[in-house]
Amino acid sequence: MADRLIHDAAAVLSIGDELILGQTLDTNSAWLSARLTELGVRIVEHATVDDDCEAIASALRRLAGRARLVIATGGLGPTIDDLTRRALADALGEGLVEDGQMLSAIRLYFAARGTEMPENNRLQALRPESASALGNAQGTAPGLHARLEIDGASADCFCLPGPPNEMRPMFEQFVMPRLNPPAGGVIRTRVIGTFGLPEATIAERLGELMARLRNPVIGTTASGGTVSCRIRFTGAAEEADEAIAQAERAVREAVSPYDFGADDETLASATLKELRRAGERLVVAESCTGGGLGALLTDVPGSSDVFCGGWITYADAMKLGALGVDKSTLRARGAVSEEVAIAMARGALRAAEEAGAPAQHALAITGVAGPGGGTKDKPAGTVWIARASDRGGEIEVDARRFLFPGERRAVRLRSALTAMAMLRLALIGAGPVKLLGQQG
Amino acid sequence: MADRLIHDAAAVLSIGDELILGQTLDTNSAWLSARLTELGVRIVEHATVDDDCEAIASALRRLAGRARLVIATGGLGPTIDDLTRRALADALGEGLVEDGQMLSAIRLYFAARGTEMPENNRLQALRPESASALGNAQGTAPGLHARLEIDGASADCFCLPGPPNEMRPMFEQFVMPRLNPPAGGVIRTRVIGTFGLPEATIAERLGELMARLRNPVIGTTASGGTVSCRIRFTGAAEEADEAIAQAERAVREAVSPYDFGADDETLASATLKELRRAGERLVVAESCTGGGLGALLTDVPGSSDVFCGGWITYADAMKLGALGVDKSTLRARGAVSEEVAIAMARGALRAAEEAGAPAQHALAITGVAGPGGGTKDKPAGTVWIARASDRGGEIEVDARRFLFPGERRAVRLRSALTAMAMLRLALIGAGPVKLLGQQG
Repeated sequence: MADRLIHDAAAVLSIGDELILGQTLDTNSAWLSARLTELGVRIVEHATVDDDCEAIASALRRLAGRARLVIATGGLGPTIDDLTRRALADALGEGLVEDGQMLSAIRLYFAARGTEMPENNRLQALRPESASALGNAQGTAPGLHARLEIDGASADCFCLPGPPNEMRPMFEQFVMPRLNPPAGGVIRTRVIGTFGLPEATIAERLGELMARLRNPVIGTTASGGTVSCRIRFTGAAEEADEAIAQAERAVREAVSPYDFGADDETLASATLKELRRAGERLVVAESCTGGGLGALLTDVPGSSDVFCGGWITYADAMKLGALGVDKSTLRARGAVSEEVAIAMARGALRAAEEAGAPAQHALAITGVAGPGGGTKDKPAGTVWIARASDRGGEIEVDARRFLFPGERRAVRLRSALTAMAMLRLALIGAGPVKLLGQQG
Repeated sequence: MADRLIHDAAAVLSIGDELILGQTLDTNSAWLSARLTELGVRIVEHATVDDDCEAIASALRRLAGRARLVIATGGLGPTIDDLTRRALADALGEGLVEDGQMLSAIRLYFAARGTEMPENNRLQALRPESASALGNAQGTAPGLHARLEIDGASADCFCLPGPPNEMRPMFEQFVMPRLNPPAGGVIRTRVIGTFGLPEATIAERLGELMARLRNPVIGTTASGGTVSCRIRFTGAAEEADEAIAQAERAVREAVSPYDFGADDETLASATLKELRRAGERLVVAESCTGGGLGALLTDVPGSSDVFCGGWITYADAMKLGALGVDKSTLRARGAVSEEVAIAMARGALRAAEEAGAPAQHALAITGVAGPGGGTKDKPAGTVWIARASDRGGEIEVDARRFLFPGERRAVRLRSALTAMAMLRLALIGAGPVKLLGQQG
């Protein structure tokens, strides 16, 4: 029953032992799905198989029976465990031939880097007889395109290399131009990001907006303190913009002021935007996050106009020496305390001023990320976050204690995000807004 | 043909619009696969479907026809788009009942946090009649276990919540005890991590070790400069340890000194281990990575004994003020230059000393992460990395220019990893070893 060809639909196949063994995360399926959805193509399935010629060939044929577009990634490398070329040939019932043009392109790739082509890479110039090779500007693995006929229907099958920096431009160059707009209209999506409320509370605020049969349909997903409200419209192209805009307004009204942005906007880019709007700058003082807050902020291109930098004060000596935290305070209250968090934030404002990179805001984080280091009073997951803001006059300080669930990585990420949320809410003048995990 | 039940095999199903739309990365399939592989269970498939009751039910039945163990994650939340409970009931041909014990557990969860259960969460106490509910210590969503009969064969079907911090302990508690050791022996894996050589060169060095029909079978996977050599043994339990150890020795000999560790060891943990062995400490000075190097190092629990912290000198003023980089040098050579990288590293050693947190090594990174900011001489991806080491006597300096391919995120990650690799190779006394992306 599931083997009917679905028009205007696509299936994504990921190939690799490392995926099926769980050693590598599959980011390609998500990326391809996001791009295809934007382009109005419905995804019917993701599947993953290992580096086994039969498994790949049989998955290609099964998926070609379900969707008119199949995109496979991986298994095009230069080593003998890269079997996608042969599997596609088997699925087509053909042999492999060497593609002279592709061989030259691979040789050129190496020549441009001042080395000769290793003999292994010659494998990458092979293609099934009826397939065409797709050039790869970022690497040595050409992609492949072929038409697979299954039960009289025919599917476009694209095999692209696994490394995302090679796969992505090849998708844009070779796959995108072949997509027809869907017959029944378009699928349009928008994601409203919120931070600081539990998913169930967001759902209660959204209420009837989440009813399953509405169009746009609205759903939520939670991940480490961020709850995304996903809006998906299916219908006539000319109604899409207005329907999405209306739904976005309703969602934002329901979840305000926890909504920080739409689609690609991250809490970091939203925070930087508010700093830019205010014409103010930020420095950070990080203990348990070890640079993670700075890394998230600088993930956003062009952040240097409002983010000066900061201090990673992982060892206590750095807290004392670089930020001037008082030694007796640190001894008496411990590194994870309100007093030390505030001293770090104030110290960062002062040190930035002294360094000639003055900032209006400092965010300081000190906590027990775990798994070790916790005590009864300060269990793993306990984090103090302080914001110090100097906008002329007295320095305004906001320090809060949090208890974050989960593993070390989750606690660290949550800490960095929560610090940004504290600053963003202050910048938009939201007043005292409690954030998820906040104690007292 | 693919619908035969495979004994001692498992299939993994991920459920969620956010996955099929590509808005969220599926980490659960990889984690479950890694755990199951370690436990000797063969994975036959990963599949992903959206929050659609029919799609979930039909995937559950299809996979139960292929493997005796099906693990599904997601769709157990408290909102109306969480449909796994109903889909499992449909797949079983049963109705849903409220589980009194689970309802009490959910109420208790909220009571322990000082709040009342939102009415939405009551949904989570529902289960198919013949299913049993599985307690969740980390959250409100109970899991479900049922036996699905397909064509006379029967599969154990576990539905676990999507959030990893809830799913993982529930897997250990409820699924693991039900796995029988495989009849034909065990699957044992080891991954040797290497950093700094291209995948094809690693493959050439491995040569015949990678032949497809050997046991253990050895394969490679590349990701951002790291090439993992995966060793997988299938056979009698008593032969596994020796076979794996032998293969590991052969792999390491072939790829030395680029091999940094096995299995869970990361380049960061390997670097920290060498520092610990030498009894030395590290500080960092980060420009284009913005804290990412510190964040990677402190991802490793217990890093504070050898990692003091550092300076995020994103704005040029911070390079001058906090690290004492010379203004005229910065003007004349630009922030992305050998001179500034060296001055940052030397400055970090000096500033750490002054702060009372002396270190023997400093790593400095300054580059053009892109997408903007590149010039003809210094295109996006150009990064200078300097190591300054003070082990008494003159300070030893090693500065290198790199050109890293890919997007901003890839360049930043590669920069941080390459800095660690430079230090690790120096600490093990590997001599001058060229690293991937190094210019000249």
